[in-house]
Order: sequence, then structure tokens, then C-alpha cells
Amino acid sequence: MIFSSDNWAGAHPVIAESLVKAAGGFASAYGTSELDKKVEKAFSEVFERDVAVFFVATGTAANSLALASANRPGGHVFCHREAHVNVDECGAPEFFSHGAKLSPVDGTHGKINPALLEKQIKHSRGGGVHGGQPMAITMTQATEAGTVYSLDEIDAIANIAKSANLPLHMDGARFANALVTLDTTPAEMTWKRGVDLLSFGGTKNGCWCAEALILFDTSKAEEMGYLRKRSAQLFSKSRFIAAQFDAYLEGGLWLDLARHANGMANRLAEGVAASNSTRLAWPTGSNELFVILKKETASRLEAEGAVFYDWPVPHTLAGSVAEDEGLYRLVTSFATQTADVDRFLDVVP
Amino acid sequence: MIFSSDNWAGAHPVIAESLVKAAGGFASAYGTSELDKKVEKAFSEVFERDVAVFFVATGTAANSLALASANRPGGHVFCHREAHVNVDECGAPEFFSHGAKLSPVDGTHGKINPALLEKQIKHSRGGGVHGGQPMAITMTQATEAGTVYSLDEIDAIANIAKSANLPLHMDGARFANALVTLDTTPAEMTWKRGVDLLSFGGTKNGCWCAEALILFDTSKAEEMGYLRKRSAQLFSKSRFIAAQFDAYLEGGLWLDLARHANGMANRLAEGVAASNSTRLAWPTGSNELFVILKKETASRLEAEGAVFYDWPVPHTLAGSVAEDEGLYRLVTSFATQTADVDRFLDVVP
Amino acid sequence: MIFSSDNWAGAHPVIAESLVKAAGGFASAYGTSELDKKVEKAFSEVFERDVAVFFVATGTAANSLALASANRPGGHVFCHREAHVNVDECGAPEFFSHGAKLSPVDGTHGKINPALLEKQIKHSRGGGVHGGQPMAITMTQATEAGTVYSLDEIDAIANIAKSANLPLHMDGARFANALVTLDTTPAEMTWKRGVDLLSFGGTKNGCWCAEALILFDTSKAEEMGYLRKRSAQLFSKSRFIAAQFDAYLEGGLWLDLARHANGMANRLAEGVAASNSTRLAWPTGSNELFVILKKETASRLEAEGAVFYDWPVPHTLAGSVAEDEGLYRLVTSFATQTADVDRFLDVVP
Amino acid sequence: MIFSSDNWAGAHPVIAESLVKAAGGFASAYGTSELDKKVEKAFSEVFERDVAVFFVATGTAANSLALASANRPGGHVFCHREAHVNVDECGAPEFFSHGAKLSPVDGTHGKINPALLEKQIKHSRGGGVHGGQPMAITMTQATEAGTVYSLDEIDAIANIAKSANLPLHMDGARFANALVTLDTTPAEMTWKRGVDLLSFGGTKNGCWCAEALILFDTSKAEEMGYLRKRSAQLFSKSRFIAAQFDAYLEGGLWLDLARHANGMANRLAEGVAASNSTRLAWPTGSNELFVILKKETASRLEAEGAVFYDWPVPHTLAGSVAEDEGLYRLVTSFATQTADVDRFLDVVP
Repeated sequence: MIFSSDNWAGAHPVIAESLVKAAGGFASAYGTSELDKKVEKAFSEVFERDVAVFFVATGTAANSLALASANRPGGHVFCHREAHVNVDECGAPEFFSHGAKLSPVDGTHGKINPALLEKQIKHSRGGGVHGGQPMAITMTQATEAGTVYSLDEIDAIANIAKSANLPLHMDGARFANALVTLDTTPAEMTWKRGVDLLSFGGTKNGCWCAEALILFDTSKAEEMGYLRKRSAQLFSKSRFIAAQFDAYLEGGLWLDLARHANGMANRLAEGVAASNSTRLAWPTGSNELFVILKKETASRLEAEGAVFYDWPVPHTLAGSVAEDEGLYRLVTSFATQTADVDRFLDVVP
Repeated sequence: MIFSSDNWAGAHPVIAESLVKAAGGFASAYGTSELDKKVEKAFSEVFERDVAVFFVATGTAANSLALASANRPGGHVFCHREAHVNVDECGAPEFFSHGAKLSPVDGTHGKINPALLEKQIKHSRGGGVHGGQPMAITMTQATEAGTVYSLDEIDAIANIAKSANLPLHMDGARFANALVTLDTTPAEMTWKRGVDLLSFGGTKNGCWCAEALILFDTSKAEEMGYLRKRSAQLFSKSRFIAAQFDAYLEGGLWLDLARHANGMANRLAEGVAASNSTRLAWPTGSNELFVILKKETASRLEAEGAVFYDWPVPHTLAGSVAEDEGLYRLVTSFATQTADVDRFLDVVP
Repeated sequence: MIFSSDNWAGAHPVIAESLVKAAGGFASAYGTSELDKKVEKAFSEVFERDVAVFFVATGTAANSLALASANRPGGHVFCHREAHVNVDECGAPEFFSHGAKLSPVDGTHGKINPALLEKQIKHSRGGGVHGGQPMAITMTQATEAGTVYSLDEIDAIANIAKSANLPLHMDGARFANALVTLDTTPAEMTWKRGVDLLSFGGTKNGCWCAEALILFDTSKAEEMGYLRKRSAQLFSKSRFIAAQFDAYLEGGLWLDLARHANGMANRLAEGVAASNSTRLAWPTGSNELFVILKKETASRLEAEGAVFYDWPVPHTLAGSVAEDEGLYRLVTSFATQTADVDRFLDVVP
Repeated sequence: MIFSSDNWAGAHPVIAESLVKAAGGFASAYGTSELDKKVEKAFSEVFERDVAVFFVATGTAANSLALASANRPGGHVFCHREAHVNVDECGAPEFFSHGAKLSPVDGTHGKINPALLEKQIKHSRGGGVHGGQPMAITMTQATEAGTVYSLDEIDAIANIAKSANLPLHMDGARFANALVTLDTTPAEMTWKRGVDLLSFGGTKNGCWCAEALILFDTSKAEEMGYLRKRSAQLFSKSRFIAAQFDAYLEGGLWLDLARHANGMANRLAEGVAASNSTRLAWPTGSNELFVILKKETASRLEAEGAVFYDWPVPHTLAGSVAEDEGLYRLVTSFATQTADVDRFLDVVP
């Protein structure tokens, strides 16, 4: 009953097998092999246009390089207050962009509030050289709160970015989970709406280590090549990433894995909703859900072997979580078993 | 007949298999799993003392983080002129250390000349705040020229580092190859002589992607944890590196692989030495060798399918390479076959 | 009637004359002249202990270098939300400290709320390498809101810094104005309470360009010498700063100038308090005051030649500023004339 | 007999007086005053075209900001090996440009050898992302060796910059000294030949502290405004720089001062040439000269009160400086007196 994080799973067998298969023989290094090229082509097909693909080691690297490429002196990056770039990356976005300032925007359930975003951009422009200047917007899909921006909601952010002449980055650490929820295409969820750069995550969805920064504007690819190498993110045996993505994208495996993870989260959500003592903190649309449990229930679950994290109660829930209750995050993955979900629900009264 | 680089090989079957084996089940992330801890312990055994181990994505990352941890404003890093940090890392060491200056030291066949090193350190101290200040020394073992520092030669550099109160870093991208040549222990080749930080490379010697920064002074580990994360080098499913190193270190596989690679290089060297038309540019002690071939021979080899790189003729060879000759680098690896070596030698007149 | 900012004044005649006097003859450069040394000694006398003094070009430089010297990877700097470092320095503190994150703390009228500060430091420690780590606290005396921390209030912040093992920086752009208000000594307002680094500003109080970073821990001076030079802040003809400070500190001129500026602000404050239509937004203790005027009065004042800035209404005043009113900032200086104050008050109904 | 450096002089009386004159009254801050604007206009007249002018604190700041504005990841800056940016700025150029690498080019007497420059640019392009990429060229006029590039020599460097599509920066710490030697116009010596950015120094030629970064491409001015502020180089009472430049440029004072300094250097040079025991190391064209003296003569001069620096003997002079001789640098300035030159020459046998 591991619901702590989707990065506690290992790799899907098909992906592990792809690594074994690619291990033999020789191939040119640093992203120039046939397999690297095959995968780059596959990404262009997935996105229905030419894209530039940069494999990197971590989602933090993809996010930070995206922001580095948008760098302006005294730059402000607008992101949700709870965004991974703002709270979980130890200043990597600031380091990669030479001291840019993250300007946190509020919004319910992990989503940037467009009106607040507009206001903060305007304020950022108002201070002249003293205050600094807007530099980029970054949004997370699916969000840290497990929610998913609808296409209209993406439009709202993208329109602001366009009006403000700011590049729009999407942190897609859980891109696949959002995509299958919206039942749309990768193109529709990104560049067709105005997303300029995408951190495309495979690691949380069944790969060992497969993250790619996707540039929809391929004219920026040359510069990014230098940025990536300067950041020590250019793998020599790059095809070990390619081998993972090759299996991941082949035949839609990535979508199947995300559907499975989301399905497990839904099963959990339905069970929780049917319970008398337990409830969802807010509805989500991905493989993360946030539940309010009696603390005693949480302890019982842990005693039974369930693993999951306490979560700080956000302002928006203040007053609706009782003294003897807590907020908890549950994350499912490609590796979550129905039996584990059901065992979990069995314990919940 | 692939002699282009040891990073053109894939992964050794035992290492690939270890990845498959580790792929199932769940484990805590970010370096905290049982497998991560097992491998950290294995490193302490390999080095006969407690060490702090930081898995990173690339050798460039290990080198750059080592230098970042030694950072001083206006700092000078002393390295060989041909060192990877100086010529092949796109400014990553400078970026990670906020603008440190690499101060290239000359020396024959890839080895830092100790007298020149001392002179440059002294000069660096002489300029006061205008000129900057010494900050670290980094040496490469085995070197970019395929040579290996003897233990006495390491002593010479380490004594200078100690006198100058400078941390000494060793770039061990080909650590195993040097180690088996010297027939010594990892401890003797590093901290027992005064090496403070080591980039321990597994990638070029049979892993897919397994690089570790080793700190012999474990009191610096806490700071390095932040430096690594801030540099976007902290893997979530860190055990995919651990799984590689687990197999790599188990039963001395890493030494066997290095012995094989070095043996193939020796076989090549002996064949070349026996030839009438071809000669070694200088003796090496690792899995790299540098040969002077007739250009016509090189072309013939390429036509037969051999892959290897032209190499710029260094000053020290000026005059000894004829018009119709060229300098070429040959690199062997765990995956090099005897038959390929012999086919290569068959073509050499 | 210039109440826009204290940096709209030029230089006090005695200070300008000191520059003329120092202009002749020759003296060694880069801070090594007799005059430089004389002024360094004067600072040690002013602070009743040995201090290390670094002249720099701007208050932003002094603040940023102070933070740079406290740098930690993934570091969080705690400051008031409205602090100059946070809103008016275009990311210089972040740039100088390689991407540190400013963590804004709330508090009424420009002063850090100690309870919130403690909470945020604790939170910062809680995220491990993902969240980053506490690195420094910076407070402003007098504050951006014109208020002055009492000695007890400084103690409260300093005790938190000490408990958390964090260096405490004081931005003293208006140090003299606060000092004469508290009627205490420079030592009592700084190191005796636990301040480690001080940006000592002379520019706003009658100098042309005289800012000094004061280190109370002189063992950090060597490193700061390199930091300053690397930041392009080491003046060659450094004695032009020394000449200003020489006159500034001589015979307590600096305190007289601050008393004058504060006195002019008090005179304004009293006049405003006596008015029927106008009131102070909050009480201040320096040379800045914030007044609520009818917009029509403000326009009339401007028509009469008064210069001052509109100020955004803070949350804490929400509701207490009427539709036809605005919040305005008035700043006095050594150069403010009683007649101008009185002309201003004459217009206020 | 102060020949140590031109920054040992103070300020010319006319310039000091201008500061006194500007000290009264009020003016808007941060470069927006009437005086600031007057001086900006004067610069446009001096250069016969619209230029963007950025006052900064030091020549190091001007140089470093120029390079920061040209920044590319993994960037290489080509400069003379002895250039101030390379040896006397404590890594500021690298810090401001986030870790760019200075690539030193050789050339006799402080001048970049164009053939070597071309070769190094080509080499820089050859390494792909591993090696980094060309980013800018910076030349010094007059050079650190006291020599002056002829207009043809500037053309040679500028043509290479143009072919390589690299911005060309000129470090003009001693711009005026070179200008009067060439007897040309500021426009001819800069943008008409292809210089893109100029560090225009006033400090060494009679100002207290007056350095300006001049952009000939005014479309880059907005970005530079943020870069300057982020680097803590935006003065509040900016008109104290403006007041210096106002007097400096007025009526050609700056050229008169440079002519005087150069004249004093020439008088020294002629005296040295006429001596039996002493000689010029190489001919120069500015206010710096390098002489070979008997060590005994040098000691005698010092005993008589002369101040000047020993200088390291460059390779190009190896063998031509006898055991009992040394190389010494003599620098004159606006403040050098004929009598001091003659007293110096009197001691030289």
C-alpha cells in the first residue's frame, strides 16, 4: 500500500527490457545515435509538429533550463505559490537563471488565478529598473494539488502570456496523467494553446529516469544545446534515456500507464467518497488525491503498512478540518495494484 | 572496430540485468532506499573509510560540484591545459562556481607539471584582490592523454595542494583504468595521498549512467546535498544509479572490466609497436592510446569499418609527425573484442 | 518644496569642500591611502570596536555583498516584505548570492514580525534539500515605512538570528536618522545587540556617494575584499569616498544632519496632525512620513511646486483611506528648509 | 615624482569645482536630472551619433557589464593575455557573465595578434557544445603596455569581429590618451570602425570617479538598464558623475588633460632615450612607458622619492634585460609636473 509518491515505483518491465535490449553494440554518444534520433522523431509525431527535444536528468533540470532560456536581468517568473519550482527545487530555477526572482501567484487547488497573475505582471512592470521585469510564466499540469487545468483554463493563462509577451512554460512532470484526464491531444494541451516550452516527464509514469525538455520553437534549440551542456545535463550514453522513451511512447504505453494510475486514484476517490468518516479535500483529476482522515484512521492505515504523507492544511481549508482529523496526500502510479487500493479502503470506516 | 570512445559502448549485461532486477517493487526516493544505502556502504568498503557518496548525472556534474564546493570569490582552479574541465565542459565548472577562472597548467602527456603548478599558484597569490586567489587543484586520473599518474606523481601534486592549503580534486572518469594499471588500492590512489574529492566514473567502464562524487571529508556532505539539489542533479529514482553501481562493484566486476579494456589497448599498442609504418605517439597506461599512422592507412582502416578520431598534434610532437601522417586516438572499452583489435592490426602494414 | 526623496538633495557644503581639499596631491589607490586609513579608524571609534570597512558605490551593493558573504546553496534570506532588498534592487541580492531566495516576512509598518520570522525559519528548515535552507536575516533601520525598531525590537530579531545560527544584517541606508531618534550609540544599535553586518549609508544624509559595508567580525574581511572586487565595487581613487566620510563623521556632522532632517519631518508631522483634513497614516521616527491627504489637496500642493510620491495603500490601512483621499510619502533631508515645510503646511487645510 | 599610476592623482580643480557647484539644490535621482541629460547629450555630440550612456562606479564594472550584455552559455571572450579584464578584475567579467571563459590571445606589446585571434575563434567554434562558443571580443585602447592600436589595427580586429558575428568591446580606461596620440575623432576610433560597446574612462584622466559604458546600438539600452541596476551600479545621486563629466568634456578639457599626460610621458621617453645607461623597453604612445634601468639607478630614484612599479619581464624581452637591470613602468597623468619629470631624468645617468 505505497501511496507516498509515484517516484517510489521502479520502472515498468517493458521499459526495463528496452534498456537491456539497447545495452549491446556501439552507438555514437551525446544524443547523436540512431535511437536518439528515432525518439526525437517520435516526439515530433506525438506533438504533431517539429519539436526540439532535450533529455535531462531531472524534472528540476528541465524546469530550470526552460527558465534559464527565458532569462532577463532582474527577471520575475510567475508561478503558483505551491509550484514545484517555487518550493521543491532548492533554488535551482534561480541558480540556472542567475538570480531570477520567483513571484508566487495564489489560486485555489494549485491553479494560478488569472486575475491575480495579470495584476502581478502589471505590478512587476511598474517598478522600472528598481523592481525588475517580467520574464516568464510557468504553470504545472497536472498541478501539485492533483488538479488539472482545463483547456479553457490553459487558454486563460496563455492569453495573458501572449498579451504580456512572456514565454509560457508548462511543468509536465505528470503530463500524461493530465492528458488522459482531459482526453485531448498533446498538441491541444500545449502549443496549440500557446505553451512555448514543456518539461515532459516520464520518470513518475514508469521510467527509471526519462525527462525531456521540449521546445516548440526549434529556433531556440541551438542555444539550449549550450545551456544544457553548461548545466552538466548532457548524457554521454544518451541512448539509455532514448531507450526508455522509445518503449514509453511505443504503442501508447505512456497513456496506458497514466490511465492505470489515474484509475487507481479514482478507485481510491470513490471509496473515500462512499465512506462515512472520510472525505476528499478537493476533487482532483490525476493520480494524486488529498483526503481528510481521522488521525486515528491514518494511524491504523500506517499500522497496516500503508505509506502516505501528511500534508499542510491550506488556508482554503481552514476550519473544515477538525481537531482529530488530518490532511493526507495519496499518490498512485503505474505500479499500484487494485488489491492495495482495496486493502486501503477496507481499513477506512 | 569501434575505437572512437568508451562511451559508444552500451551497458555490460550484468549491469543491465541489475536494472531489470531492481525495477520491481517500491522504494523510497531521492537516495534514501535500501539499495542506495547498500551502495554507499560498498563505496566506504572500497575506499577503506567512511565516505560521502553523491550520485550525479554526468562526469561534468561531479567535477563541477567538486569545484563549486571549493568556491572562493575570484577563485583560480589549477588544472592541466587539456583537462576535460577546461576544454570539454562548456563552462560548467565556471557556472557551478559562479565564475571561477580555470588556470591551465602545462605538462607533458596530460600530466600537470608540478614546478609550473607551484609557480602559477604563487603568481595567483601575488595579485591581491585584483588578480584573484587560488581556490582548488584538479587532476585527471587516467589523464586525457591516456597516461596515468604514478603514486609518486600524485604525491607531488598533493604536497603542493597541502602546502598551498588548497583542496585537491581528482577527475576519475577513467579511475578504474588507472587503478588496475598501478595495481594499487582506491585508498592509496586517493585520500591516503591527499585527494579530497573524487569524481568516480562508472559510465565509461560498463554502466549506462553511473557517476558519483565522493567526499573523503564527510563533514562537507550536508552542504553538498544542497549544492547537488540546487544543480538539478538529485535523481528521484536514485536507485537506478545504485542498481548499476551495485552490480559494478560486486565481486570486483569494475576492475575486471577495466582490465579487459586496458588489455585490449595493450594488444593494440603491441601490434602498433611491431608495425613498420606505425608508432605510438607516447606510451599510455589506460584504455586510450595515441598512434601516428600514415593518412593512407587511416583511410584504409576507416574504409574497413574502423571508427576513431583524428587528434590535434600537440607542440611536444611538432616535427615528429610527417606530412603524410596523422595523429589518431584509439579508445577501448569493456565491450571491445579481441577479433576487432586483430582486424584493425591486420590492416596496419 | 522637494519631499520626493532624500536622494534628490546634492551634497552638504562641508562634504563638497572636503572633496575639493582632497583633490590635490597624490595618494595610493584602492583604499590604501592615509585618508582611507584615517576614515577606517574613525569608523572603529564610532562603533567602539575594531570594524572592517568596505566602501562601495551604492546601498544596493552594500546589502548585496553582505548577503553574498552569507551565501549557502539553496539559501533563504528573511527580510520584510517591503524591504529595499526585496522590492527595489532588481534582483541584485539574488545575483550577488548566486540565486538565493528572498523570503518575505510580514509585519506592520515595515518591521519584521518576530513570530512570523521564527515560523518561516522553521518552515525553511523543514523541507530538507528540496526546500533549501535558511541563510541570513536582514532588517532595515530606519525602515522603508519610516519607522524605527526600538532596541528591544532589535533584540527580538537578533535573538532569533542567534538561536537559528544565522547572520544578521542591518540595512542602514538611513542609519543616522534612526540613531538620533533612539538617542543611542552606534554600538548599542548594532553589534551589542547581535548585528553582524551593517550597510552604513551616507548618501541620503548629505554625501554625494558614500556607502560603507561594515563587518563587525573582522575575520571575514579578507574574503569580503575579494567579493567586493569581483563585484566591480573597488574604487581606484577610493579616497574620494574617504574624503566624504571624513567630513561626515568629523565633529558629529552626520548626526547634526540627521537631526535636522528628522526635525523637518517632525515639523511636517505636527503640522499635519494639527490639520482638520489631513492625518498621518502611521507614526514614524525618521525623516520619512506617510500622510493621508485629500486628492484635491495633493493636487494643489503639486501646483504650488511641492514634489512628493503617491504611495500604494497597504492592507493594514484598507478601509481607512476614503475615495477622495490618497496616501503620500514625504521625505526630508539635510537640505530641507523650514520655509518649505511651512509653505507646504500653509496649503494643507 | 609619482609615476606609480594615474589613479594616484586626485581630481583636476575644474572637476572638483564642478562638484561643488552641483552640490546645491535638488534634482531628480537615478540618472534622470537635467545635468545627467545634458551630459548624455554631450556624449552624443562627442561621438557624432546617438549613444546610450551608463554611468558606473569602476572601469571593471563598465567592462563586465559590456561582456554581460553579450552573454552566451559556454561563451568565450577573446582578449589580450595581459588585458585588465583577464588579469586585474578578480573574475568580475566571469561573474557578471555567469561563468564565461576568457580566452587569452597573445600579441606583442599588449595588442591582440589578429591571426591568432582568428585561429582561436575558429577553434572555439570547433568543439561544439563541449567546447563552448565564441561570445565577444574585447580590446584595450590604449593597451596595458602603453601602446596604441592604429586605426588600421582597429580595423583588423573589427573585421574579424564582424566576420565572426561577435560584438566588439573597447576598454577605454585610457581612451583619451590614445585618442590624442592618433589625432583622430572619438567616432573614427570606435563605431565607425566597428566597435559596439565602449568603456569610457574619466577617472584616470582627472576625474574622481567617472566611468561610463557607451552603447553605440541604443536598442540595447533598455536591457542594459536592468543589467546595471542588478549589478548594484545605479547611483542615486547620479549627477555627481554627471557633474564630473560635464566639466571633463566642456571645452575639450579631457583632451587637454590627456595631451598633458602624454606630453609628460614623451618628455620622460626622450630623456630616457638620450641616456647612456637606460632605454625604453618598447615604444609607447600614451601616458605609460616601460623602461629598462640599472637596478642601482632604480634604487637611487626611489631614494630620491620617485615612486614607480617593477614590471615582470615579458617573453619578448627575454635576454635583452641584463642581470643588473630591471623593467619598470612609469605612468604620468594630468597632475604630473615638468619639474618632477626633470628631477627624475636628472638622476638617470
